[in-house]
Amino acid sequence: MAKRITLYSAKVCPWAHRTELALKESKLPYTRYEIDLANKPEWYAPKINKASKVPAIAYGGPDVPPDEPSPDSTKIAESGVLLEFFADLDTPQPLLPKDPIDRAKARFFIETVTPAYTSGFFAAISGSKDPEAIFDGIEVIQNLLPEKGFAVGEWSIADAAVTPFFARTEVTLKNDIGKYEAGKGKAAWEKLQTDPRYARFRQYFSDLKNRDSYKETFDEEHVREFFSKRFVRDA
Amino acid sequence: MAKRITLYSAKVCPWAHRTELALKESKLPYTRYEIDLANKPEWYAPKINKASKVPAIAYGGPDVPPDEPSPDSTKIAESGVLLEFFADLDTPQPLLPKDPIDRAKARFFIETVTPAYTSGFFAAISGSKDPEAIFDGIEVIQNLLPEKGFAVGEWSIADAAVTPFFARTEVTLKNDIGKYEAGKGKAAWEKLQTDPRYARFRQYFSDLKNRDSYKETFDEEHVREFFSKRFVRDA
Repeated sequence: MAKRITLYSAKVCPWAHRTELALKESKLPYTRYEIDLANKPEWYAPKINKASKVPAIAYGGPDVPPDEPSPDSTKIAESGVLLEFFADLDTPQPLLPKDPIDRAKARFFIETVTPAYTSGFFAAISGSKDPEAIFDGIEVIQNLLPEKGFAVGEWSIADAAVTPFFARTEVTLKNDIGKYEAGKGKAAWEKLQTDPRYARFRQYFSDLKNRDSYKETFDEEHVREFFSKRFVRDA
Repeated sequence: MAKRITLYSAKVCPWAHRTELALKESKLPYTRYEIDLANKPEWYAPKINKASKVPAIAYGGPDVPPDEPSPDSTKIAESGVLLEFFADLDTPQPLLPKDPIDRAKARFFIETVTPAYTSGFFAAISGSKDPEAIFDGIEVIQNLLPEKGFAVGEWSIADAAVTPFFARTEVTLKNDIGKYEAGKGKAAWEKLQTDPRYARFRQYFSDLKNRDSYKETFDEEHVREFFSKRFVRDA
Protein backbone atom coordinates (compact mmCIF):
# COMPACT_ATOMS: atom_id res chain seq x y z
CA MET A 1 0.00 0.00 0.00
CA ALA A 2 1.30 3.43 -0.93
CA LYS A 3 1.41 5.91 1.92
CA ARG A 4 0.28 9.53 2.12
CA ILE A 5 1.77 11.70 -0.66
CA THR A 6 2.11 15.48 -0.62
CA LEU A 7 3.43 16.87 -3.90
CA TYR A 8 5.19 20.23 -3.97
CA SER A 9 4.84 21.53 -7.49
CA ALA A 10 4.64 24.69 -9.60
CA LYS A 11 2.29 25.01 -12.56
CA VAL A 12 4.90 26.66 -14.77
CA CYS A 13 7.66 24.07 -14.23
CA PRO A 14 7.85 21.28 -16.83
CA TRP A 15 9.88 19.04 -14.52
CA ALA A 16 7.25 19.29 -11.80
CA HIS A 17 4.52 18.76 -14.40
CA ARG A 18 6.06 15.36 -15.24
CA THR A 19 5.39 14.09 -11.74
CA GLU A 20 1.87 15.49 -11.60
CA LEU A 21 0.96 13.69 -14.83
CA ALA A 22 2.32 10.42 -13.44
CA LEU A 23 0.46 10.82 -10.14
CA LYS A 24 -2.83 11.56 -11.92
CA GLU A 25 -2.37 8.51 -14.14
CA SER A 26 -1.48 6.32 -11.17
CA LYS A 27 -4.87 7.06 -9.52
CA LEU A 28 -3.07 7.34 -6.19
CA PRO A 29 -4.59 10.00 -3.94
CA TYR A 30 -2.29 12.92 -3.19
CA THR A 31 -2.28 16.47 -1.88
CA ARG A 32 -0.86 19.14 -4.15
CA TYR A 33 0.80 22.29 -2.88
CA GLU A 34 1.74 25.10 -5.28
CA ILE A 35 5.16 26.64 -4.67
CA ASP A 36 5.59 30.19 -5.93
CA LEU A 37 9.06 29.85 -7.49
CA ALA A 38 9.61 33.61 -7.38
CA ASN A 39 8.80 33.75 -3.68
CA LYS A 40 9.40 30.37 -2.05
CA PRO A 41 8.10 29.82 1.47
CA GLU A 42 10.96 29.95 3.97
CA TRP A 43 10.23 26.44 5.25
CA TYR A 44 10.55 24.86 1.79
CA ALA A 45 14.34 24.45 1.49
CA PRO A 46 15.05 23.40 5.08
CA LYS A 47 12.05 21.07 5.46
CA ILE A 48 11.33 19.66 1.99
CA ASN A 49 14.18 20.00 -0.52
CA LYS A 50 17.47 21.60 0.35
CA ALA A 51 18.14 22.22 -3.35
CA SER A 52 14.99 24.39 -3.09
CA LYS A 53 13.60 23.09 -6.39
CA VAL A 54 10.30 21.54 -7.43
CA PRO A 55 9.15 18.82 -7.73
CA ALA A 56 9.52 17.15 -4.36
CA ILE A 57 7.25 15.01 -2.23
CA ALA A 58 6.68 14.23 1.40
CA TYR A 59 5.89 10.51 1.64
CA GLY A 60 4.28 8.87 4.65
CA GLY A 61 4.25 10.42 8.11
CA PRO A 62 1.34 12.04 9.95
CA ASP A 63 -1.57 13.97 8.42
CA VAL A 64 -0.25 17.53 8.53
CA PRO A 65 -0.97 20.67 6.49
CA PRO A 66 1.41 20.81 3.47
CA ASP A 67 2.89 24.08 4.72
CA GLU A 68 3.72 22.51 8.09
CA PRO A 69 5.66 19.44 6.91
CA SER A 70 6.51 16.78 9.46
CA PRO A 71 10.06 15.52 10.03
CA ASP A 72 8.53 12.04 10.11
CA SER A 73 7.75 11.88 6.39
CA THR A 74 10.37 10.90 3.79
CA LYS A 75 11.30 13.71 1.41
CA ILE A 76 12.11 12.75 -2.18
CA ALA A 77 13.16 15.13 -4.97
CA GLU A 78 14.12 15.14 -8.68
CA SER A 79 11.53 14.42 -11.35
CA GLY A 80 13.30 11.39 -12.84
CA VAL A 81 13.64 9.82 -9.40
CA LEU A 82 9.99 10.52 -8.61
CA LEU A 83 8.69 9.00 -11.85
CA GLU A 84 10.50 5.76 -11.03
CA PHE A 85 9.36 5.95 -7.40
CA PHE A 86 5.69 6.22 -8.37
CA ALA A 87 6.18 3.33 -10.82
CA ASP A 88 7.65 1.24 -7.97
CA LEU A 89 4.63 1.82 -5.72
CA ASP A 90 1.61 -0.44 -5.69
CA THR A 91 -0.64 1.84 -7.77
CA PRO A 92 -4.21 1.30 -9.03
CA GLN A 93 -2.90 1.93 -12.56
CA PRO A 94 0.60 0.72 -13.53
CA LEU A 95 3.04 3.38 -14.73
CA LEU A 96 5.58 1.07 -16.36
CA PRO A 97 5.18 -2.25 -18.16
CA LYS A 98 6.34 -5.38 -16.30
CA ASP A 99 8.63 -6.75 -19.01
CA PRO A 100 12.27 -5.68 -18.49
CA ILE A 101 12.77 -5.04 -22.21
CA ASP A 102 9.73 -2.75 -22.41
CA ARG A 103 10.88 -0.97 -19.26
CA ALA A 104 14.29 -0.44 -20.87
CA LYS A 105 12.55 1.01 -23.95
CA ALA A 106 10.62 3.46 -21.76
CA ARG A 107 13.82 4.58 -20.03
CA PHE A 108 15.72 4.84 -23.30
CA PHE A 109 12.90 7.06 -24.60
CA ILE A 110 13.23 9.34 -21.55
CA GLU A 111 17.05 9.48 -21.71
CA THR A 112 17.11 10.14 -25.43
CA VAL A 113 14.14 12.44 -25.99
CA THR A 114 14.59 14.68 -22.94
CA PRO A 115 17.95 16.20 -23.98
CA ALA A 116 17.19 16.03 -27.72
CA TYR A 117 13.90 17.89 -27.37
CA THR A 118 14.55 20.30 -24.51
CA SER A 119 17.82 21.59 -25.98
CA GLY A 120 16.05 22.76 -29.13
CA PHE A 121 13.03 24.13 -27.29
CA PHE A 122 14.98 26.15 -24.73
CA ALA A 123 17.39 27.40 -27.42
CA ALA A 124 14.37 28.61 -29.39
CA ILE A 125 12.57 30.50 -26.64
CA SER A 126 15.78 31.99 -25.26
CA GLY A 127 16.64 33.21 -28.74
CA SER A 128 19.93 31.38 -29.19
CA LYS A 129 18.46 29.35 -32.08
CA ASP A 130 15.64 29.71 -34.59
CA PRO A 131 12.38 28.01 -33.47
CA GLU A 132 13.01 25.51 -36.28
CA ALA A 133 15.42 23.92 -33.75
CA ILE A 134 12.49 21.99 -32.29
CA PHE A 135 12.19 19.83 -35.41
CA ASP A 136 15.44 17.94 -34.70
CA GLY A 137 13.96 16.73 -31.43
CA ILE A 138 10.66 15.89 -33.09
CA GLU A 139 12.45 13.67 -35.58
CA VAL A 140 14.20 11.85 -32.74
CA ILE A 141 10.78 11.25 -31.16
CA GLN A 142 9.18 10.03 -34.37
CA ASN A 143 12.03 7.56 -34.90
CA LEU A 144 11.37 6.03 -31.48
CA LEU A 145 7.56 6.00 -31.42
CA PRO A 146 5.74 2.83 -32.39
CA GLU A 147 3.27 3.07 -35.29
CA LYS A 148 0.50 4.05 -32.92
CA GLY A 149 -0.06 4.58 -29.22
CA PHE A 150 2.38 5.95 -26.70
CA ALA A 151 6.16 5.72 -26.24
CA VAL A 152 6.08 2.01 -25.43
CA GLY A 153 2.51 1.25 -26.50
CA GLU A 154 0.48 1.72 -23.33
CA TRP A 155 0.86 5.06 -21.54
CA SER A 156 3.90 5.07 -19.20
CA ILE A 157 6.24 7.39 -17.33
CA ALA A 158 8.10 7.81 -20.64
CA ASP A 159 5.13 9.86 -21.82
CA ALA A 160 4.90 11.78 -18.55
CA ALA A 161 8.55 12.76 -18.93
CA VAL A 162 8.16 14.49 -22.28
CA THR A 163 4.56 15.82 -22.39
CA PRO A 164 5.28 18.99 -20.35
CA PHE A 165 7.76 20.21 -22.96
CA PHE A 166 5.29 19.76 -25.81
CA ALA A 167 2.65 21.66 -23.81
CA ARG A 168 5.04 24.57 -23.32
CA THR A 169 6.05 24.48 -26.99
CA GLU A 170 2.43 24.94 -28.00
CA VAL A 171 1.84 27.79 -25.56
CA THR A 172 4.95 29.69 -26.59
CA LEU A 173 5.17 29.15 -30.36
CA LYS A 174 1.43 29.46 -31.04
CA ASN A 175 1.52 32.85 -29.26
CA ASP A 176 4.90 33.80 -30.73
CA ILE A 177 6.41 33.99 -27.24
CA GLY A 178 10.20 33.82 -27.19
CA LYS A 179 13.32 35.85 -27.86
CA TYR A 180 13.44 34.87 -31.54
CA GLU A 181 12.54 37.11 -34.49
CA ALA A 182 8.82 38.09 -34.39
CA GLY A 183 6.63 35.76 -36.43
CA LYS A 184 9.04 32.81 -36.41
CA GLY A 185 7.34 31.06 -33.51
CA LYS A 186 3.95 31.14 -35.19
CA ALA A 187 5.53 29.98 -38.44
CA ALA A 188 7.22 26.99 -36.78
CA TRP A 189 3.98 26.10 -35.00
CA GLU A 190 2.06 26.30 -38.28
CA LYS A 191 4.61 24.02 -39.93
CA LEU A 192 4.30 21.53 -37.10
CA GLN A 193 0.50 21.51 -37.57
CA THR A 194 0.50 21.00 -41.31
CA ASP A 195 3.73 19.43 -42.61
CA PRO A 196 3.06 15.78 -43.48
CA ARG A 197 6.51 14.88 -42.13
CA TYR A 198 5.28 15.53 -38.58
CA ALA A 199 2.00 13.63 -38.74
CA ARG A 200 3.13 10.97 -36.27
CA PHE A 201 4.17 13.56 -33.71
CA ARG A 202 0.84 15.41 -34.14
CA GLN A 203 -1.08 12.21 -33.46
CA TYR A 204 1.09 11.49 -30.40
CA PHE A 205 0.63 14.95 -28.91
CA SER A 206 -3.11 14.80 -29.64
CA ASP A 207 -3.35 11.44 -27.84
CA LEU A 208 -1.49 12.90 -24.85
CA LYS A 209 -3.74 15.97 -24.71
CA ASN A 210 -6.87 13.84 -24.80
CA ARG A 211 -6.01 12.19 -21.51
CA ASP A 212 -7.59 13.41 -18.29
CA SER A 213 -4.14 13.66 -16.74
CA TYR A 214 -3.27 16.43 -19.21
CA LYS A 215 -6.53 18.31 -18.86
CA GLU A 216 -6.35 18.19 -15.08
CA THR A 217 -2.74 19.34 -14.73
CA PHE A 218 -2.04 21.90 -17.44
CA ASP A 219 -3.16 25.48 -16.82
CA GLU A 220 -2.50 26.94 -20.26
CA GLU A 221 -3.38 30.54 -19.39
CA HIS A 222 -1.18 30.57 -16.29
CA VAL A 223 1.76 29.10 -18.19
CA ARG A 224 1.26 31.49 -21.14
CA GLU A 225 1.36 34.48 -18.81
CA PHE A 226 4.53 33.26 -17.11
CA PHE A 227 6.42 32.57 -20.34
CA SER A 228 5.32 35.83 -21.94
CA LYS A 229 6.89 37.73 -19.03
CA ARG A 230 9.94 35.50 -18.76
CA PHE A 231 10.95 35.47 -22.45
CA VAL A 232 10.42 39.02 -23.68
CA ARG A 233 11.69 39.79 -27.17
CA ASP A 234 14.40 42.45 -27.29
CA ALA A 235 12.96 45.72 -28.54
CA MET B 1 15.33 -16.35 -16.18
CA ALA B 2 17.66 -13.84 -17.79
CA LYS B 3 18.61 -14.62 -21.38
CA ARG B 4 21.96 -14.60 -23.14
CA ILE B 5 23.83 -11.28 -22.72
CA THR B 6 26.60 -9.96 -24.95
CA LEU B 7 28.11 -6.73 -23.67
CA TYR B 8 29.85 -4.36 -26.08
CA SER B 9 32.24 -2.33 -23.98
CA ALA B 10 35.53 -0.43 -24.05
CA LYS B 11 38.02 -0.55 -21.19
CA VAL B 12 38.68 3.19 -21.30
CA CYS B 13 35.05 4.32 -21.20
CA PRO B 14 33.65 5.13 -17.73
CA TRP B 15 30.04 4.81 -18.95
CA ALA B 16 30.70 1.31 -20.27
CA HIS B 17 32.58 0.45 -17.08
CA ARG B 18 29.40 1.16 -15.09
CA THR B 19 27.57 -1.65 -16.83
CA GLU B 20 30.44 -4.09 -16.51
CA LEU B 21 30.60 -3.53 -12.76
CA ALA B 22 26.86 -4.16 -12.47
CA LEU B 23 27.03 -7.32 -14.58
CA LYS B 24 29.93 -8.70 -12.51
CA GLU B 25 28.05 -7.98 -9.29
CA SER B 26 24.84 -9.55 -10.65
CA LYS B 27 26.64 -12.90 -11.18
CA LEU B 28 24.80 -13.27 -14.47
CA PRO B 29 26.91 -14.96 -17.15
CA TYR B 30 27.75 -12.73 -20.11
CA THR B 31 30.09 -12.44 -23.06
CA ARG B 32 32.20 -9.33 -23.29
CA TYR B 33 33.38 -7.83 -26.55
CA GLU B 34 35.90 -4.98 -26.60
CA ILE B 35 35.11 -2.19 -29.06
CA ASP B 36 38.09 -0.15 -30.21
CA LEU B 37 36.57 3.33 -30.00
CA ALA B 38 39.17 4.77 -32.34
CA ASN B 39 38.45 2.14 -34.96
CA LYS B 40 34.95 0.75 -34.54
CA PRO B 41 33.99 -2.37 -36.49
CA GLU B 42 31.76 -1.47 -39.43
CA TRP B 43 28.95 -3.75 -38.22
CA TYR B 44 28.73 -2.04 -34.82
CA ALA B 45 26.53 0.99 -35.63
CA PRO B 46 24.12 -0.74 -38.03
CA LYS B 47 23.75 -3.95 -36.04
CA ILE B 48 24.18 -3.00 -32.36
CA ASN B 49 23.82 0.72 -31.59
CA LYS B 50 23.06 3.27 -34.26
CA ALA B 51 24.46 6.00 -31.99
CA SER B 52 27.71 4.00 -32.34
CA LYS B 53 28.53 4.37 -28.63
CA VAL B 54 29.39 1.91 -25.87
CA PRO B 55 27.95 0.41 -23.76
CA ALA B 56 25.30 -1.62 -25.53
CA ILE B 57 24.09 -5.19 -25.19
CA ALA B 58 22.55 -7.86 -27.35
CA TYR B 59 19.97 -9.66 -25.21
CA GLY B 60 18.50 -13.05 -26.05
CA GLY B 61 18.55 -14.55 -29.53
CA PRO B 62 20.73 -17.37 -30.85
CA ASP B 63 24.26 -18.27 -29.76
CA VAL B 64 26.33 -16.30 -32.28
CA PRO B 65 29.86 -14.84 -32.20
CA PRO B 66 29.75 -11.27 -30.77
CA ASP B 67 31.11 -9.87 -34.02
CA GLU B 68 28.33 -11.54 -36.02
CA PRO B 69 25.31 -10.23 -34.09
CA SER B 70 21.90 -11.72 -34.85
CA PRO B 71 18.87 -9.59 -35.78
CA ASP B 72 16.92 -11.84 -33.39
CA SER B 73 18.47 -10.44 -30.21
CA THR B 74 17.21 -7.23 -28.57
CA LYS B 75 19.73 -4.39 -28.61
CA ILE B 76 19.78 -2.04 -25.62
CA ALA B 77 22.04 1.00 -25.17
CA GLU B 78 22.80 3.80 -22.67
CA SER B 79 24.51 3.06 -19.36
CA GLY B 80 21.69 4.39 -17.16
CA VAL B 81 19.12 2.31 -19.03
CA LEU B 82 21.31 -0.79 -18.79
CA LEU B 83 21.90 -0.44 -15.04
CA GLU B 84 18.12 -0.40 -14.49
CA PHE B 85 17.66 -3.24 -16.97
CA PHE B 86 20.09 -5.51 -15.15
CA ALA B 87 18.40 -4.59 -11.85
CA ASP B 88 15.03 -5.59 -13.37
CA LEU B 89 16.29 -9.04 -14.37
CA ASP B 90 16.10 -12.06 -12.14
CA THR B 91 19.75 -12.03 -11.05
CA PRO B 92 21.61 -14.29 -8.59
CA GLN B 93 22.62 -11.12 -6.68
CA PRO B 94 20.17 -8.19 -6.46
CA LEU B 95 21.39 -4.87 -7.83
CA LEU B 96 18.81 -2.62 -6.17
CA PRO B 97 17.04 -2.89 -2.82
CA LYS B 98 13.35 -3.90 -2.89
CA ASP B 99 11.99 -0.98 -0.85
CA PRO B 100 10.76 1.89 -3.08
CA ILE B 101 12.27 4.52 -0.77
CA ASP B 102 15.70 2.89 -0.86
CA ARG B 103 15.44 2.56 -4.62
CA ALA B 104 14.62 6.27 -4.83
CA LYS B 105 17.70 7.02 -2.72
CA ALA B 106 19.88 4.99 -5.09
CA ARG B 107 18.51 6.85 -8.10
CA PHE B 108 18.84 10.22 -6.38
CA PHE B 109 22.49 9.35 -5.68
CA ILE B 110 23.08 8.58 -9.37
CA GLU B 111 21.26 11.70 -10.61
CA THR B 112 23.01 13.99 -8.15
CA VAL B 113 26.53 12.62 -8.00
CA THR B 114 27.03 11.92 -11.71
CA PRO B 115 26.83 15.56 -12.90
CA ALA B 116 28.35 16.98 -9.70
CA TYR B 117 31.41 14.73 -9.88
CA THR B 118 31.99 14.35 -13.62
CA SER B 119 31.79 18.09 -14.32
CA GLY B 120 34.71 18.76 -11.95
CA PHE B 121 36.71 15.77 -13.10
CA PHE B 122 36.41 16.45 -16.83
CA ALA B 123 37.04 20.18 -16.28
CA ALA B 124 40.23 19.24 -14.42
CA ILE B 125 41.74 16.84 -16.95
CA SER B 126 40.77 19.03 -19.90
CA GLY B 127 42.47 21.98 -18.21
CA SER B 128 39.46 24.29 -17.97
CA LYS B 129 39.61 24.15 -14.16
CA ASP B 130 42.19 23.43 -11.50
CA PRO B 131 42.20 19.76 -10.31
CA GLU B 132 40.85 21.11 -7.00
CA ALA B 133 37.50 21.15 -8.87
CA ILE B 134 37.01 17.49 -7.92
CA PHE B 135 36.52 18.37 -4.25
CA ASP B 136 33.12 20.01 -4.84
CA GLY B 137 31.83 16.70 -6.17
CA ILE B 138 33.45 14.78 -3.33
CA GLU B 139 31.62 16.93 -0.80
CA VAL B 140 28.32 16.22 -2.56
CA ILE B 141 29.10 12.50 -2.29
CA GLN B 142 30.05 12.67 1.38
CA ASN B 143 26.81 14.51 2.18
CA LEU B 144 24.80 11.66 0.64
CA LEU B 145 26.75 8.64 1.90
CA PRO B 146 25.54 6.85 5.01
CA GLU B 147 27.98 6.59 7.90
CA LYS B 148 29.38 3.37 6.50
CA GLY B 149 28.84 1.04 3.58
CA PHE B 150 27.81 1.95 0.08
CA ALA B 151 25.51 4.61 -1.41
CA VAL B 152 22.37 3.06 0.05
CA GLY B 153 23.98 0.63 2.50
CA GLU B 154 24.33 -2.58 0.49
CA TRP B 155 26.16 -2.34 -2.84
CA SER B 156 23.79 -1.24 -5.66
CA ILE B 157 23.76 0.21 -9.15
CA ALA B 158 24.23 3.62 -7.49
CA ASP B 159 27.79 2.52 -6.72
CA ALA B 160 28.32 1.07 -10.19
CA ALA B 161 27.31 4.43 -11.68
CA VAL B 162 30.01 6.46 -9.94
CA THR B 163 32.95 4.06 -9.39
CA PRO B 164 34.37 4.40 -12.94
CA PHE B 165 34.93 8.13 -12.45
CA PHE B 166 36.82 7.63 -9.19
CA ALA B 167 39.00 5.00 -10.89
CA ARG B 168 39.88 7.43 -13.68
CA THR B 169 40.52 10.22 -11.18
CA GLU B 170 43.12 8.07 -9.43
CA VAL B 171 44.84 7.07 -12.65
CA THR B 172 45.04 10.62 -13.97
CA LEU B 173 45.80 12.72 -10.88
CA LYS B 174 48.22 10.25 -9.28
CA ASN B 175 50.21 10.29 -12.52
CA ASP B 176 49.71 14.02 -13.06
CA ILE B 177 47.89 13.34 -16.35
CA GLY B 178 45.77 16.25 -17.57
CA LYS B 179 45.98 19.63 -19.24
CA TYR B 180 46.38 21.47 -15.94
CA GLU B 181 49.61 23.02 -14.61
CA ALA B 182 52.27 20.33 -13.96
CA GLY B 183 52.27 19.07 -10.37
CA LYS B 184 48.70 20.14 -9.59
CA GLY B 185 47.21 16.71 -10.26
CA LYS B 186 49.61 15.00 -7.88
CA ALA B 187 48.98 17.70 -5.29
CA ALA B 188 45.19 17.26 -5.48
CA TRP B 189 45.59 13.48 -5.25
CA GLU B 190 47.86 13.84 -2.20
CA LYS B 191 45.30 16.11 -0.55
CA LEU B 192 42.54 13.61 -1.25
CA GLN B 193 44.66 10.87 0.39
CA THR B 194 45.50 12.80 3.53
CA ASP B 195 43.05 15.60 4.32
CA PRO B 196 40.82 14.53 7.23
CA ARG B 197 37.86 16.21 5.52
CA TYR B 198 37.82 13.50 2.87
CA ALA B 199 38.09 10.47 5.15
CA ARG B 200 34.58 9.23 4.35
CA PHE B 201 35.21 9.36 0.62
CA ARG B 202 38.54 7.53 1.05
CA GLN B 203 36.79 4.74 2.94
CA TYR B 204 34.08 4.55 0.29
CA PHE B 205 36.53 4.33 -2.61
CA SER B 206 38.60 1.78 -0.72
CA ASP B 207 35.48 -0.36 -0.14
CA LEU B 208 34.65 -0.15 -3.85
CA LYS B 209 38.18 -1.11 -4.89
CA ASN B 210 38.16 -4.10 -2.59
CA ARG B 211 35.30 -5.72 -4.49
CA ASP B 212 36.00 -8.40 -7.07
CA SER B 213 33.87 -6.47 -9.56
CA TYR B 214 36.43 -3.65 -9.50
CA LYS B 215 39.48 -5.88 -9.70
CA GLU B 216 38.00 -7.86 -12.57
CA THR B 217 36.92 -4.90 -14.70
CA PHE B 218 39.48 -2.12 -14.31
CA ASP B 219 42.65 -2.33 -16.37
CA GLU B 220 44.63 0.49 -14.77
CA GLU B 221 47.60 0.34 -17.12
CA HIS B 222 45.43 0.36 -20.24
CA VAL B 223 43.40 3.32 -18.97
CA ARG B 224 46.52 5.21 -17.88
CA GLU B 225 48.03 4.86 -21.33
CA PHE B 226 44.86 6.06 -23.03
CA PHE B 227 44.41 9.13 -20.83
CA SER B 228 48.09 10.06 -21.01
CA LYS B 229 47.79 10.23 -24.81
CA ARG B 230 44.36 11.87 -24.84
CA PHE B 231 45.07 14.67 -22.36
CA VAL B 232 48.53 15.93 -23.19
CA ARG B 233 49.66 19.07 -21.38
CA ASP B 234 50.37 22.00 -23.70
CA ALA B 235 54.12 22.52 -24.09
